[in-house]
Amino acid sequence: MTSFKEFCLILILLVVISHDQSVLGSNKHQKQPCKRFVVYYHDILFGGFGGDDPANSTSAVVANATQLGNFFGMLVVFDDPVTKDQNLNSPPVARAQGFYFYDLKNSFGAWFAFTLVFNSSDYKGTLDIMGADPIKAKTRDLSVVGGTGDFLLARGIATLQTDALEGTVYFRLKMDIKL
Amino acid sequence: MTSFKEFCLILILLVVISHDQSVLGSNKHQKQPCKRFVVYYHDILFGGFGGDDPANSTSAVVANATQLGNFFGMLVVFDDPVTKDQNLNSPPVARAQGFYFYDLKNSFGAWFAFTLVFNSSDYKGTLDIMGADPIKAKTRDLSVVGGTGDFLLARGIATLQTDALEGTVYFRLKMDIKL
Amino acid sequence: MTSFKEFCLILILLVVISHDQSVLGSNKHQKQPCKRFVVYYHDILFGGFGGDDPANSTSAVVANATQLGNFFGMLVVFDDPVTKDQNLNSPPVARAQGFYFYDLKNSFGAWFAFTLVFNSSDYKGTLDIMGADPIKAKTRDLSVVGGTGDFLLARGIATLQTDALEGTVYFRLKMDIKL
Repeated sequence: MTSFKEFCLILILLVVISHDQSVLGSNKHQKQPCKRFVVYYHDILFGGFGGDDPANSTSAVVANATQLGNFFGMLVVFDDPVTKDQNLNSPPVARAQGFYFYDLKNSFGAWFAFTLVFNSSDYKGTLDIMGADPIKAKTRDLSVVGGTGDFLLARGIATLQTDALEGTVYFRLKMDIKL
Repeated sequence: MTSFKEFCLILILLVVISHDQSVLGSNKHQKQPCKRFVVYYHDILFGGFGGDDPANSTSAVVANATQLGNFFGMLVVFDDPVTKDQNLNSPPVARAQGFYFYDLKNSFGAWFAFTLVFNSSDYKGTLDIMGADPIKAKTRDLSVVGGTGDFLLARGIATLQTDALEGTVYFRLKMDIKL
Repeated sequence: MTSFKEFCLILILLVVISHDQSVLGSNKHQKQPCKRFVVYYHDILFGGFGGDDPANSTSAVVANATQLGNFFGMLVVFDDPVTKDQNLNSPPVARAQGFYFYDLKNSFGAWFAFTLVFNSSDYKGTLDIMGADPIKAKTRDLSVVGGTGDFLLARGIATLQTDALEGTVYFRLKMDIKL
């Protein structure tokens, strides 16, 4: 009988253990990012806000700033290249398509909504991102609210960091994507 | 004792099996669409981009195209009818309320954010959709990022297909919604 | 042997019960709001649509109304204070940063996308909200589609109610947030 008792207890223990592991496993799955990668976003407005270099720009002002100051209300539409490293001339791994507008009176800040459209050997699909970008903060978290293709139903965070700033004609953001 | 051994083993097996089924069940639930349906979106800009037919139009240009070409930057606000079939005059099952802007330089493409507001015998509630629409592609996946009412907390995909195109005054999109 | 039989059965029952509880528990967790609170949003356009009081306004028109009527197409960018009570002069618990545009021809309605940026003793982080706002309805549900910080990966509903309306220069919305 001893062997059966032992067998029975071991089986029960295995059930309990496997059950606990599956519960822990699913929790882990929800709390740890499944994917994480860094890309660089290049906003190219070479003509500045006046927009007199359309041949080389990949973004354009579509609504002008208001009287509230700090470009408040200026709306920019973009189809900007996104690269794996900081070099503007590296082959893009994605395009960032969307818009931002400046929306702070007493500081510089913007609000973004855009889609990262991936078409590389690593990823095909899209990520949709939106949120406030208080430019003066060292890092800013925006929400990843959806995705398609390799990023189907994605959710997560895109941590933005200003990586370069050249007046009103170019800036580069480091985007740390955690899904 | 044999009957107890068997009883014990059967019970343990049932626990293991039921546990596996529940895990498989929850996975299935997350990966298969709960709801799927097709609707047609009619963008009506009868006066064209000049907007000189406000009586019949359901959308309007609010920011003009920039010098980047292909209507880059042109922003259109809409409250467009959505029907079950392709007929513009069918009773709408929803309104599509939101905006799009053109955002490609070397092709035609747009970026959409809008809400489907349902008020039919089938559904009451809203679906929020956003994403890039590279018009030249046969099908384009946008993200369903939220919903209310019958679509509370909805997530999924809206696959768009150009179903009709009449210059700058009318286009119809087939929307295949998978939640 | 009886004691072992009983022990064995009790253990099996415990496994079954704990398994069921964990399944029920996770379902409950998904269906009941984790957090619920009310805040008030103050849209301050003291100069009216003409915008001639930039010093005191926290929002501004960036694209004018079209010919479709009822301000259709008028686009407003805002960085509005959000308070715990109805008093505009109470210390803000958050800023609402984003935009709305009017988009109905035969009634008054708007479409919103914005981020609640919390920086109070209660909460630090952001909530991203979007959806249609048919102003004439007593309550309107918009979608909470994402969040960061204390609201990491938030999803839910923001129920809006017009709480005050002073022509084109000020309105207050009660926002009942259910996450």
